[in-house]
Amino acid sequence: MKFDILTLFPEMFDVFNHSIIKRAREKGIVELNVHDIRDYTTNKHKKVDDYPYGGGAGMVMQAEPIYNAVESIKEIYGYKPYTILMSPKGKKYNQDLCRELSNIKHIMLICGHYEGIDERIMPLVDLEISIGDYVLTGGEIAAMAIVDSVSRMVPGVLSTQESFENESFYEGLLEYPQYTRPEVFRGMKVPDVLLSGNHSKILEWRRYQSLKITYERRRDLIEKADLSPDDIKMLERIKKECSDNS
Amino acid sequence: MKFDILTLFPEMFDVFNHSIIKRAREKGIVELNVHDIRDYTTNKHKKVDDYPYGGGAGMVMQAEPIYNAVESIKEIYGYKPYTILMSPKGKKYNQDLCRELSNIKHIMLICGHYEGIDERIMPLVDLEISIGDYVLTGGEIAAMAIVDSVSRMVPGVLSTQESFENESFYEGLLEYPQYTRPEVFRGMKVPDVLLSGNHSKILEWRRYQSLKITYERRRDLIEKADLSPDDIKMLERIKKECSDNS
Repeated sequence: MKFDILTLFPEMFDVFNHSIIKRAREKGIVELNVHDIRDYTTNKHKKVDDYPYGGGAGMVMQAEPIYNAVESIKEIYGYKPYTILMSPKGKKYNQDLCRELSNIKHIMLICGHYEGIDERIMPLVDLEISIGDYVLTGGEIAAMAIVDSVSRMVPGVLSTQESFENESFYEGLLEYPQYTRPEVFRGMKVPDVLLSGNHSKILEWRRYQSLKITYERRRDLIEKADLSPDDIKMLERIKKECSDNS
Repeated sequence: MKFDILTLFPEMFDVFNHSIIKRAREKGIVELNVHDIRDYTTNKHKKVDDYPYGGGAGMVMQAEPIYNAVESIKEIYGYKPYTILMSPKGKKYNQDLCRELSNIKHIMLICGHYEGIDERIMPLVDLEISIGDYVLTGGEIAAMAIVDSVSRMVPGVLSTQESFENESFYEGLLEYPQYTRPEVFRGMKVPDVLLSGNHSKILEWRRYQSLKITYERRRDLIEKADLSPDDIKMLERIKKECSDNS
């Protein structure tokens, strides 16, 4: 999996010199190339932004340095990688889109800054993505979320210890509570069932907890989830308990 | 605005030695203290995780080092800062929640890793937040999104050049397209109206573009937006044009 990133703050991506992505880069499973947009300016002062036409607050990033950067990257590889613009106007990012992106071998991410980027870069862009309905100072942290979440789906990046089989959104439900040693911590005991050694009881407890927390916090996910007949029976019990308690 | 962050990867937060947040830290408007959870272990090997009770893949972060870290921070300040756990099970982060958090003077963020954290840390937590329906390798990038988006709402962090008056989500709509110099770039011309100098025409064009892109991409936002009678008239025109084109 290869990422090329266009940004005004290349040092921010040193974040991937740590943790799981660092290891994946060392193993050669993930490759990350960060390009400073400022290096692609043609003016003396390496200026990358200017006032918006029509007035208004803020500065707008110019199209030219971005075109120059994309063309130089195209020359290196012999093709233009699948190009994503990080933008609050983009398609809402979620685990399904993450899975789709993990099947693309080479992704280029453009990080905006200031009040936005000149609209005329849009012919370069294959997809605009928003990581959520909040405003960041730039596209960098959003691009990090993409690189991190997509990379971890690539075979070999996560060890079996970090497997993603039982986690939130993998089956469309939120995850059940986890406990580790010690058995009693500050007077709080691990639920008996988890110490019972009864595998089917444990599975049932976990499924119940997963359904319950998803029902309580994210009914939108319950509606989209692929539920078995047993799940639906469990959910009936949960609904009854919730209404009894209210 | 003060942030304390609990993480296993403190160096990742060097990301805030750059860009706008760097400047805010230098001005003393934003303070960021990063704590390595590993420093709060009491075992020889600084182990912070263990196998989950009840079996299953992955490792679970232990409660004890996190309790120790929180207690040590409480001792420094004389109180426990408002404590947020980054978690896929949390409340969905958005610009409204961002604005609420920007009114809290001191926030502590706990970043999980591995398969999760021992559920018994929950008594320490005031709020669980999820930045979106996707899975990251840890809570660090999510915590960065919170620090970045909340900080920029704090008066003095953004210069007037970076003002947030006209941006996506500020008024609940997506932003209109922006253009900057040159007037013609690779054969693409800036829309005439933006060069006209007619301020009211420019305002009208921008509002129309904002409504149009929001209608096309995010009808959910249109439904929640606070629209004027003029907006509603414009929207009728947009709907008609969209259905004529389809």
